[in-house]
Amino acid sequence: MKRFMDEDFLLSTETAKKLYHEYAETMPIIDYHCHISPQEIYEDRKFENITQVWLGGDHYKWRQMRSNGVEERYITGDATDREKFQKWAETLEMAIGNPLYHWSHLELKRYFGYEGCLNGETAEEVWQLCNEKLAQSDMTARNLIKKSNVTLLCTTDDPIDSLCWHKKIAEDDSFDVQVLPAWRPDRAMYLEKADYLDYLQKLSDVSGVKIDSFSSLIEALKNRIEFFASMGCTVSDHGMAYVMYAPATDKEVEEVFAKRLLGEIPDESSEAKFKTAFLIAMGREYSKRNWVMQLHYGVKRDNSKRVFNALGPDAGIDCISNYTPSSQLAHFLNALDETDELPKTIIYSLNPIDNAAIGTIIGCFQNSSAVGKIQQGSAWWFNDHKTGMQDQMKSLASLGLLGNFIGMLTDSRSFLSYTRHEYFRRIMCDLIGGWVENGEYPADYRVLEKIVKGISYNNTVRYFEF
Amino acid sequence: MKRFMDEDFLLSTETAKKLYHEYAETMPIIDYHCHISPQEIYEDRKFENITQVWLGGDHYKWRQMRSNGVEERYITGDATDREKFQKWAETLEMAIGNPLYHWSHLELKRYFGYEGCLNGETAEEVWQLCNEKLAQSDMTARNLIKKSNVTLLCTTDDPIDSLCWHKKIAEDDSFDVQVLPAWRPDRAMYLEKADYLDYLQKLSDVSGVKIDSFSSLIEALKNRIEFFASMGCTVSDHGMAYVMYAPATDKEVEEVFAKRLLGEIPDESSEAKFKTAFLIAMGREYSKRNWVMQLHYGVKRDNSKRVFNALGPDAGIDCISNYTPSSQLAHFLNALDETDELPKTIIYSLNPIDNAAIGTIIGCFQNSSAVGKIQQGSAWWFNDHKTGMQDQMKSLASLGLLGNFIGMLTDSRSFLSYTRHEYFRRIMCDLIGGWVENGEYPADYRVLEKIVKGISYNNTVRYFEF
Amino acid sequence: MKRFMDEDFLLSTETAKKLYHEYAETMPIIDYHCHISPQEIYEDRKFENITQVWLGGDHYKWRQMRSNGVEERYITGDATDREKFQKWAETLEMAIGNPLYHWSHLELKRYFGYEGCLNGETAEEVWQLCNEKLAQSDMTARNLIKKSNVTLLCTTDDPIDSLCWHKKIAEDDSFDVQVLPAWRPDRAMYLEKADYLDYLQKLSDVSGVKIDSFSSLIEALKNRIEFFASMGCTVSDHGMAYVMYAPATDKEVEEVFAKRLLGEIPDESSEAKFKTAFLIAMGREYSKRNWVMQLHYGVKRDNSKRVFNALGPDAGIDCISNYTPSSQLAHFLNALDETDELPKTIIYSLNPIDNAAIGTIIGCFQNSSAVGKIQQGSAWWFNDHKTGMQDQMKSLASLGLLGNFIGMLTDSRSFLSYTRHEYFRRIMCDLIGGWVENGEYPADYRVLEKIVKGISYNNTVRYFEF
Repeated sequence: MKRFMDEDFLLSTETAKKLYHEYAETMPIIDYHCHISPQEIYEDRKFENITQVWLGGDHYKWRQMRSNGVEERYITGDATDREKFQKWAETLEMAIGNPLYHWSHLELKRYFGYEGCLNGETAEEVWQLCNEKLAQSDMTARNLIKKSNVTLLCTTDDPIDSLCWHKKIAEDDSFDVQVLPAWRPDRAMYLEKADYLDYLQKLSDVSGVKIDSFSSLIEALKNRIEFFASMGCTVSDHGMAYVMYAPATDKEVEEVFAKRLLGEIPDESSEAKFKTAFLIAMGREYSKRNWVMQLHYGVKRDNSKRVFNALGPDAGIDCISNYTPSSQLAHFLNALDETDELPKTIIYSLNPIDNAAIGTIIGCFQNSSAVGKIQQGSAWWFNDHKTGMQDQMKSLASLGLLGNFIGMLTDSRSFLSYTRHEYFRRIMCDLIGGWVENGEYPADYRVLEKIVKGISYNNTVRYFEF
Repeated sequence: MKRFMDEDFLLSTETAKKLYHEYAETMPIIDYHCHISPQEIYEDRKFENITQVWLGGDHYKWRQMRSNGVEERYITGDATDREKFQKWAETLEMAIGNPLYHWSHLELKRYFGYEGCLNGETAEEVWQLCNEKLAQSDMTARNLIKKSNVTLLCTTDDPIDSLCWHKKIAEDDSFDVQVLPAWRPDRAMYLEKADYLDYLQKLSDVSGVKIDSFSSLIEALKNRIEFFASMGCTVSDHGMAYVMYAPATDKEVEEVFAKRLLGEIPDESSEAKFKTAFLIAMGREYSKRNWVMQLHYGVKRDNSKRVFNALGPDAGIDCISNYTPSSQLAHFLNALDETDELPKTIIYSLNPIDNAAIGTIIGCFQNSSAVGKIQQGSAWWFNDHKTGMQDQMKSLASLGLLGNFIGMLTDSRSFLSYTRHEYFRRIMCDLIGGWVENGEYPADYRVLEKIVKGISYNNTVRYFEF
Repeated sequence: MKRFMDEDFLLSTETAKKLYHEYAETMPIIDYHCHISPQEIYEDRKFENITQVWLGGDHYKWRQMRSNGVEERYITGDATDREKFQKWAETLEMAIGNPLYHWSHLELKRYFGYEGCLNGETAEEVWQLCNEKLAQSDMTARNLIKKSNVTLLCTTDDPIDSLCWHKKIAEDDSFDVQVLPAWRPDRAMYLEKADYLDYLQKLSDVSGVKIDSFSSLIEALKNRIEFFASMGCTVSDHGMAYVMYAPATDKEVEEVFAKRLLGEIPDESSEAKFKTAFLIAMGREYSKRNWVMQLHYGVKRDNSKRVFNALGPDAGIDCISNYTPSSQLAHFLNALDETDELPKTIIYSLNPIDNAAIGTIIGCFQNSSAVGKIQQGSAWWFNDHKTGMQDQMKSLASLGLLGNFIGMLTDSRSFLSYTRHEYFRRIMCDLIGGWVENGEYPADYRVLEKIVKGISYNNTVRYFEF
């Protein structure tokens, strides 16, 4: 029996251990997609206790606590932080086979030096230990990032954001990790939302472009893209229920937008036409600037209206959608590719059953403008577990070139989540090591080093060209 | 090489063996969902031969025999029982990797003491042995149930059923296994069926409520729910092509129903509105009474009209449907949750590709009214095999709390099927044992015992509150 | 660590080795579905160099080269064959976990005696070696087929094909491998295509039947079916986005066809009615003649219009479609089954998530007219890799009788692809051997030999009745 989460955690063969410890373990991290706050980085936030860090905003954990029958007051309510931590610890021991079990213990090991198991009985000792450590100066936001060997990270930012914190961070010589914005114009795309016109007004104000038409909307966004680019941004991100393709004439799109300006919420068909045109327009801008386009889809959000009304979005009430038509995705990519305006693109579906379809779609649009130009993104959100990562990588390998995969991201709000890169790298090395041990790939360490270091870090450097 | 199906069958590590033999093996069985006949229990049915037990109504086996090119007369026709058994034995040896291979041999071992392999050559000796044993007094329906360590089972019953056999069983002091009804009002929901009005008449008669409107239909059903509750029922079950959500006003629903009373078969849209309203009304009743709602979907039934015309339903001609929109399921659950009337719910899709979507949907509606309030049901029907169970548990563990899983049911018409619980427990212990051996979960037997006994039995006790 | 692709490649247990080396390895090959050119067989084509063989038309390889950022001129353009080979070799080393890595090395071992690894550094030695070998007389098309232990192969042919090369091969006593045509009437079914009327004219000419109605179209095709039958054909094949079922009256179908004759492209609904009627009419003919019907679906072709415009179809720009409604497939099969006119049928979806649905659908339509009458086809095209094959066989075994599976086909344009049968057999023996080693199936070599030889070869002989 292997010891619980020891130095060879998830590494089941000698080759896997060698690949991980010699090549993957010490590579730096580029976290090209996360949700941490640049303000907290700039201000070098400190945390009073482990509940703040772990349970403050982590809806992954909230839903597990609810699954364990924990009352809401111990999750998002007015119970004390110590009480909440106890409930979390009691929940965690039921989470056998869940990535949260592993992530939590990796974080305890790497950041707090705790080698035991967190459960209801050990909660008190863990609480004490973590809070002592958190009081130390090396456990601030910046120090956690540096300690994690992160060289660059991309936050997620709205076009109207002033990026003031990014600017301050860039100007601060005392912190040499690059903190770049990523462009996420969802609010400009979701014209069906009630606050859309308010948003347009803000976008108009910040861009200096009066938005009275679809084309002026795009002009305003181009203005902001330029600004983001001036701040070092080279990555965009779009979140959608599914990638749609509903082609329409400019006139049709302008009509939909004109009606929306008058307050009319478009029907589904008009909405799809607008969003298709919007995403194509964005894609063309990204292509011009050699930006990367990230497409995240397959989500149905805010399912429990009762919880949503109480807590708002990101409350642990999202689920996978199984309506993700692969044909529309292929048509959409072709619409950009046809005029040679398809940017580097990363495709993530939240539904793991889309792996094979995506693996074949990306192969249709590759070309020499970049190595691995169209990528299937790493197992995302609910799939961000051992089986999910293995399946995504096996699918990708079976259908394309795993050697060019750009690998992991945290997608996280927490400064402790960098251990997810460790988790990913262990799983990746175990997969590749297993193939080598099994005689399915030669034990040629010249190539294996290139592949493992590539997927860990180097491919990301080459791909994003930060 | 391990011996064929020995005492450590499916247990590939020492930890798995320990978990199974020390914790899981001896736990009693609550079979909360089956299709056995309460009359046969009451009358303590005896069986003349193994063909009656195995091939009398088991359409799982029929379809395999057809796949082996066996003529229908040897399956459901007028061949002798001995001839049919021969054909089954010859079919079985081709069923490598099929759960029927394992189930059949587990039944031969546990109930008949046969340790060999059934095939065309051994059919005669197995026939003789089984029939001798079946002639013994300990091989009646009741004795098989007791021998299987079953403490409670739920049959599947129509609202119009008198539950007379349940009553007789309850009154019979000589049999201390609880045999409870489960409420399955499908016939009251499928208004598109030709015999729907006949059914309503019967429901009217038995409930004493004149059914002349949707609201009186629900009144009649409430009356029967009360009756079922008085007989100890706390579990409902619904079978559907998919879980739909087509909200409508009371007036619209009443109109659809009024037309149906006049003989008009509603169009698909009206049908969906009626069924949505029906299921919501039922869900509210279950919530009031703290009943469990089971939703089974993803089936397309009676596909070969030729076989259906000859043999009727349940003839081995059903298949998986891949139209199971996750968004409608989420909307439906929210419709009940929004008013805090979502009962404890178990969701089963026949399509294994729905695992991840279900695993995320259940997480949206958990709360402190029950531990593991919304469950993903055990791998069901066609998925009730090693890979299917492993996939369902791995998915559940990756997305939620496996520790709170309520585990296995037989869904069977046979008194020998309880070995499916053994099959499930072995697979469950192997999965968990593998994680422990692999250093993915600590070898903390305090918690492991709780988890393994929980999934085997204790979680079911806590969940159903029989 | 196992040596790279040694004699026990993919065989991870002693039982697996025994099953492969004693039963599977030496069985002949029937390649009942491929795309090689009968003319090249008749003319006994020789190849100048390995680039011609490997990269001449293999769009599997092209898409990987594009994924590696290789310029199109080195793929399908005017670079030299040596340059192209270099780029391919450099691409291949990134293809860890991809079947092309294994296929390529199996081909190098079996046909060229090369035991090393192909990569950028060894490209030159491999180039020299292969080209020397290709210059030898035993490396012609016919000799490659014979050396591969092929006893029979089916090409893929259009109804208007004269089958002149098949005739010449049959008359040539010096080549004793049977080369039979397979009937693929896609061009007669795709009435939405621009060149459909031209095609009908050709079909009219070759059949001698004037095509002025749907019924005369079917008459013309019957005429050609007779001709194909006279040439030994017993296999048909249909490629579709999905198997549809849109029943219509004869009159409706004739109207759709009449309009098409006048140049009108039908709408989707009319198209579906026509295609349903077409496929049912074909199925009836196959049933009469005891032909096998192959249904291939789940593909979306020619996705990059830019590449399509440059290179035409089969350019490496196809993908999986996830719109494959299982209910329509079941209805379609029933439409033929209802009148007892369902022929032996093999169902292949390109989408691996359809495995379970297909596995249950085939079970609905089995009967005694053939052993394993309705088959799930081998993991196809993009699924033709280790995981894909394992998943297809595990699904098939869990839901039906793996013992009756008709096994592998190459689906290839190349004379070197027969090693894919070896690849398949190794994976199959490893799967079955693993079950035996794990105590899940008895080590009964009487049955195991039957099963392994059956899936390798004998089931195909029994099924197709060539």
